[in-house]
Amino acid sequence: MDSRDKSYLSVSLGVAPPPSVVPSKVAVLRRRLSFNEYVEGIFRGDRVVLAKAITLIESARPQDNELAQEIIQACLPKAGKSLRIGITGVPGAGKSMFLETIGTRLAKEGRKVAVLAVDPSSERSGGSILGDKTRMEQLSGCENAFIRPSPSGGTLGGVARRTRETMILCEAAGFHLIFVETVGVGQSETLVHGMVDFFLLLMIAGAGDELQGIKRGIIEMADMMAINKAEGENLQRAQLARQEYASALHMFPPRNDGWVPPVLTCSALTGAGIMDVWETIKSFELQMKENGSFDANRRRQRLQWLTQTIKDDLMAEFWNDPQIKERLESVRDQVENGDLYSGRAAGSLVALFRNQQYR
Amino acid sequence: MDSRDKSYLSVSLGVAPPPSVVPSKVAVLRRRLSFNEYVEGIFRGDRVVLAKAITLIESARPQDNELAQEIIQACLPKAGKSLRIGITGVPGAGKSMFLETIGTRLAKEGRKVAVLAVDPSSERSGGSILGDKTRMEQLSGCENAFIRPSPSGGTLGGVARRTRETMILCEAAGFHLIFVETVGVGQSETLVHGMVDFFLLLMIAGAGDELQGIKRGIIEMADMMAINKAEGENLQRAQLARQEYASALHMFPPRNDGWVPPVLTCSALTGAGIMDVWETIKSFELQMKENGSFDANRRRQRLQWLTQTIKDDLMAEFWNDPQIKERLESVRDQVENGDLYSGRAAGSLVALFRNQQYR
Repeated sequence: MDSRDKSYLSVSLGVAPPPSVVPSKVAVLRRRLSFNEYVEGIFRGDRVVLAKAITLIESARPQDNELAQEIIQACLPKAGKSLRIGITGVPGAGKSMFLETIGTRLAKEGRKVAVLAVDPSSERSGGSILGDKTRMEQLSGCENAFIRPSPSGGTLGGVARRTRETMILCEAAGFHLIFVETVGVGQSETLVHGMVDFFLLLMIAGAGDELQGIKRGIIEMADMMAINKAEGENLQRAQLARQEYASALHMFPPRNDGWVPPVLTCSALTGAGIMDVWETIKSFELQMKENGSFDANRRRQRLQWLTQTIKDDLMAEFWNDPQIKERLESVRDQVENGDLYSGRAAGSLVALFRNQQYR
Repeated sequence: MDSRDKSYLSVSLGVAPPPSVVPSKVAVLRRRLSFNEYVEGIFRGDRVVLAKAITLIESARPQDNELAQEIIQACLPKAGKSLRIGITGVPGAGKSMFLETIGTRLAKEGRKVAVLAVDPSSERSGGSILGDKTRMEQLSGCENAFIRPSPSGGTLGGVARRTRETMILCEAAGFHLIFVETVGVGQSETLVHGMVDFFLLLMIAGAGDELQGIKRGIIEMADMMAINKAEGENLQRAQLARQEYASALHMFPPRNDGWVPPVLTCSALTGAGIMDVWETIKSFELQMKENGSFDANRRRQRLQWLTQTIKDDLMAEFWNDPQIKERLESVRDQVENGDLYSGRAAGSLVALFRNQQYR
């Protein structure tokens, strides 16, 4: 891959393109590729083709999605060999700089690193996490790195699904370290927790849980807590917070997989402690693979995705059904006014959905 | 209603029956009633018939449920005129004694009071809240009161649905004050919040939120917080807790309905403050009815129930479909092993569900 490749990548990342580009590459970027071109491109680790394939996944056009599903299935035998790491924390915890620092170090060590995002605000605003690529300038300049912002639009469940699919393509393209960033508010952290092997909660000192908006449930999901911004005047406070969180974590019941979530301090700014975080993640991976929890978790996740996708697909078919829409129009007011019991209305709508297909 | 009626009610409540019973009443209790007998019995406020109708709602037999749906629809015009009050709080907050005290006072004032429960443990254990009726001896002895434990078994969503239906029957039977008790852990408080007009969070002093297991989300849902057990040596601590929670609540953004959730202290044991809680609930009702929020909330809830019931019913039909069960058997392992992408498997299962009905 020559150095120009990056410029094509940067186009897809929303960074200003360089003054001149090679026409054939522009052609690749613009035209539709065949199934084989997609799969071969992904298998040889071509980031331009990978980015285009992800765009297919994110497309609203049904024919794009059909092709995307074929590509995902073809990638599946080469997928799943990565380590998937979820990162959450409130805005201001320094997630982007943390990813920039740890990602760049690992990429320079020769690892292929992908950074994805699941943004709960994408439902409304059209995405914000990783949207500002200038925040990860160093990492996005690495040949071994692939950064992709949160898919925008659609439901949060849809966003999560497209991120899972993107993960499979990245793995098939040889990215064996996948970071998935999200914000620790709402439902998104539960969704990200359900698609990763390791879940890191990034905190900062000087604010209680309450103020950081971190729910108890998120702390329970965390495989590690890292107190970021442990630098300069803040160092002591970070160390104090570390102790407090460590004793708070002791109150949780022991886990079935035998892992005791540690609390570390680090500084994405100075780099202090960052590689300790990484070493801990590696020892988690080793330990979980040895005791079988790693594989058991993956298997459980795949079945959960199946159940969730069936639910999403079936409900989408229901709500988009023209006859249901029409009938709903007439019963909706009656239910809203309290003239028709919701249970009865639901029963007749579900019966309509099933019976209309006999005709 | 003569004084013997209570003894029949007590049978359905699990309290020991009196030595002798009138045969004709036993017959009513045992035999199947007709649709008309049910509806007329409910309309005249007969608690024995009401209890039997609720048993129909809770039945696992499809023909019982069909009859139950007819009865609910018939009761609908007489329903909805009550004030529905949800009560949550951790075990030990004194919910049962609070209900015993406030319920007995209101019943003795001549109000007809129903106490229902949504128990998240019912999925597993078969119900525990309100199960021990000896805890509400006074209230269950009141002619104006009707107490019904949480329906046992089934999913939490199913339990919530049967409680909503029970609420409609109680209203049609003239119970114009309905309390719905739940435990402030898991999802049940969200479900109860979605079926009531007023949501009361009962707390005790001397334990932080964290220790009480109360999630931030529950505090946000509360229309009032009452610090119970404000008595004796505990009084001062309760008053201090009241101040702390009051200032914590000030940090939440103002509500659209203009209500500012107050924090009160009370003692279910001595009765102190109990009627202040009631006065506050009444002023909430008045204020919300004046500004239209009361009705708007009810309308919103009915539409949410419709959506939720459709989802539950449709998914139940899917999972119980014999052909789906068979196909699932074969794809499940492939998905679990990572040989088949969950999205693709889901797509083929949903297509099977829809297409098999053409034949």
